[in-house]
Amino acid sequence: MVLDDEPHLPEGGHGVSFESMWSALEPVGRSAQTGGYRRFAWTREDHDLREWFAGECQRRGLDLTEDRMGNQWAWWGSPDSAAAAGRPGVVTGSHLDSVPDGGAFDGPLGVVSAFAALDALRERDFEPTRPIGVVNFVDEEGARFGVACAGSRVITGAMTARRARSLSDADGTTMAEALEAAGRDPHLIGRDDETLRRIGTFVELHVEQGRGLVDVEHPVGVATDIWPHGRWRLDFSGEANHAGTTRLEDRQDAMLGYAGAVLAAREAATRHGCVATIGKVHVTPGGVNAIPSHVTGWLDARGASPRAVRRAVADVRDMVQQAGGTVAEESWTPSTPFDAELAARLQTRLGGIPLLGTGAGHDAGILANAGIDTAMLFVRNPTGVSHSPREHAELGDCLEGVAALSAVLEELAGEAA
Amino acid sequence: MVLDDEPHLPEGGHGVSFESMWSALEPVGRSAQTGGYRRFAWTREDHDLREWFAGECQRRGLDLTEDRMGNQWAWWGSPDSAAAAGRPGVVTGSHLDSVPDGGAFDGPLGVVSAFAALDALRERDFEPTRPIGVVNFVDEEGARFGVACAGSRVITGAMTARRARSLSDADGTTMAEALEAAGRDPHLIGRDDETLRRIGTFVELHVEQGRGLVDVEHPVGVATDIWPHGRWRLDFSGEANHAGTTRLEDRQDAMLGYAGAVLAAREAATRHGCVATIGKVHVTPGGVNAIPSHVTGWLDARGASPRAVRRAVADVRDMVQQAGGTVAEESWTPSTPFDAELAARLQTRLGGIPLLGTGAGHDAGILANAGIDTAMLFVRNPTGVSHSPREHAELGDCLEGVAALSAVLEELAGEAA
Repeated sequence: MVLDDEPHLPEGGHGVSFESMWSALEPVGRSAQTGGYRRFAWTREDHDLREWFAGECQRRGLDLTEDRMGNQWAWWGSPDSAAAAGRPGVVTGSHLDSVPDGGAFDGPLGVVSAFAALDALRERDFEPTRPIGVVNFVDEEGARFGVACAGSRVITGAMTARRARSLSDADGTTMAEALEAAGRDPHLIGRDDETLRRIGTFVELHVEQGRGLVDVEHPVGVATDIWPHGRWRLDFSGEANHAGTTRLEDRQDAMLGYAGAVLAAREAATRHGCVATIGKVHVTPGGVNAIPSHVTGWLDARGASPRAVRRAVADVRDMVQQAGGTVAEESWTPSTPFDAELAARLQTRLGGIPLLGTGAGHDAGILANAGIDTAMLFVRNPTGVSHSPREHAELGDCLEGVAALSAVLEELAGEAA
Repeated sequence: MVLDDEPHLPEGGHGVSFESMWSALEPVGRSAQTGGYRRFAWTREDHDLREWFAGECQRRGLDLTEDRMGNQWAWWGSPDSAAAAGRPGVVTGSHLDSVPDGGAFDGPLGVVSAFAALDALRERDFEPTRPIGVVNFVDEEGARFGVACAGSRVITGAMTARRARSLSDADGTTMAEALEAAGRDPHLIGRDDETLRRIGTFVELHVEQGRGLVDVEHPVGVATDIWPHGRWRLDFSGEANHAGTTRLEDRQDAMLGYAGAVLAAREAATRHGCVATIGKVHVTPGGVNAIPSHVTGWLDARGASPRAVRRAVADVRDMVQQAGGTVAEESWTPSTPFDAELAARLQTRLGGIPLLGTGAGHDAGILANAGIDTAMLFVRNPTGVSHSPREHAELGDCLEGVAALSAVLEELAGEAA
């Protein structure tokens, strides 16, 4: 798809306040039971969030387009002609999906702040010399299909279309089937150079998922890098049988190997100085009185040093294989340094705010690995808690984040042509 | 409900073959993926199985009634007048529900054999002097709500109606809600003396869930007792947080305590000479990149000696409590000896077939504990495998089971008045 080649400013229609946007998103996909969010790719909730995004674009007269993976892009200006002229756009945004029972901030804060920052630029009659884009990446958390950042991985080619289509959720529905059920053609997904060409610089704002900014008492910081991180699938096979009538010596109970792996992962992480987590498990048949015939666990491991992480995973692999299980790497993202020059420039522009690294993966990391100049801003999280209904950022800090993001966009999209 | 007080024999309408009944049941609730059965209480599949049962009753001119819990009872003869005359009925049957991905035999073999045995009696023009009943107990496996033999527990008062109503399934649906969704009134459930009065003797035929009959090379055996067995719910609380950004020392990961309990349960069972299984687990939030805030596991423990089982569970409890978790007893059924005189009588009638105990719970055990004269027949299982799609019995052995059951019914329902 080629976007309108006539450069134009949106006609009328300014935005609404940060708080109004926040309130509109708040009920979508929130569990009454836990207060946490369940916003998974290509579900009804995801559809509602995409509709909300489209509405915010329309309200502001932005051109909305979708890439081959269904990521949503809203443009102020004409990204194709700008890219052809060697001045590709400045894009900000994040994602709207969540982990199971996640918080309200991880993802949506970056999207809402993007629209609010754009509104702030317009209120002061800023005239960009490069197009400004706002993006909503699909399936960032990988909560449904197990691979994080699926939206950015597919369009950059970091994950093949074939692999993405064949990923399956807990009910056995493949991503291809989920795409079809959402009215999309799974055969269209794939690397999307047309979209990538439009992105000169990408800046993602995100709630911090640790306590780095609390420690230095600052509401906003600039990211230096994303730790190396990966996910591994651990499979243990046993034999389904009756829990009451099968002698211990006749059993092949897949749960025992799994339990050993959980403990081995924690020990290995401690030993090598990284973090390791098994937060998801699937048991077949899963009956109270049936010996498990199969248990699958998912290992998430990260750390400042890629070597430490690989060593910890190797230790877990040894243990799993000794127990007769298998380990398959589902994803591995090496250390991702963000553009140091860009980070320094933003830090200076924002008055010397702190620099910090992070153990969380982001679409910004995928784009950085694809060779795009990329930066991230973090907003203070008073408890450091994330991926939980207790995830939080104070409104004042969020508005500081919007102010920082609008200053950054002004800096990057206001360069003399 | 008072059943028709006029004694009458069914008019015409004999049964169909064992194989035809078996074929009709085969597709209901079978997973195309695993080949196992998913027949859970008060679901669509359960409804279809109940309709099948009703059809078999109609075909044979049996009076179909449901008790206060929805267990289905089919009568040949008038159980109320017989009970009033001090000659209550002889009941056989079993259940039609399954564990997740269970086999075809556990439950249905007893129901199909009951109809087939009744047909055999009619073919030889047997005239019962006591009414004969066929029962389909609901929710025997407890696969959905976690408590086995819910149907027989409620009507005998072994489980209160209040507790049954409040049990909930994995989706948070309570049994009360499930009953309502199935068009039933949850406030009607409870102890049902009117139904119990009709049962003079109960004989349940069941596929063996071990290899006792294989060892002695006999197709059919008579049960001596059901081992003491119980279920315990293990709960571990942690704090949901991001798997990448939370330092190991800041974590409260509920999965670690759970993994320790799985290993502790196996060790304790080995130490005390019983069996213990954790075959079902539920993790909150259950995301690959979220530290578990809560993990619930279900422990099933059984053994020939109640003392050994209680000691093993006490050891698990110690470990769980040390890890900050809790243990709640969901059910405990002490050793259940079947009526020894009745078992000896059946054994003699059937030509000295083997006697054997079992680690599996059954509705027959619940009725025996309620003071009803109860016996069980087991049909040989060539591999001993049960609660698995590989559960099996040879057709020849099944027909031997039908012959044995019809002989038993003839013996018990043919006594001189």
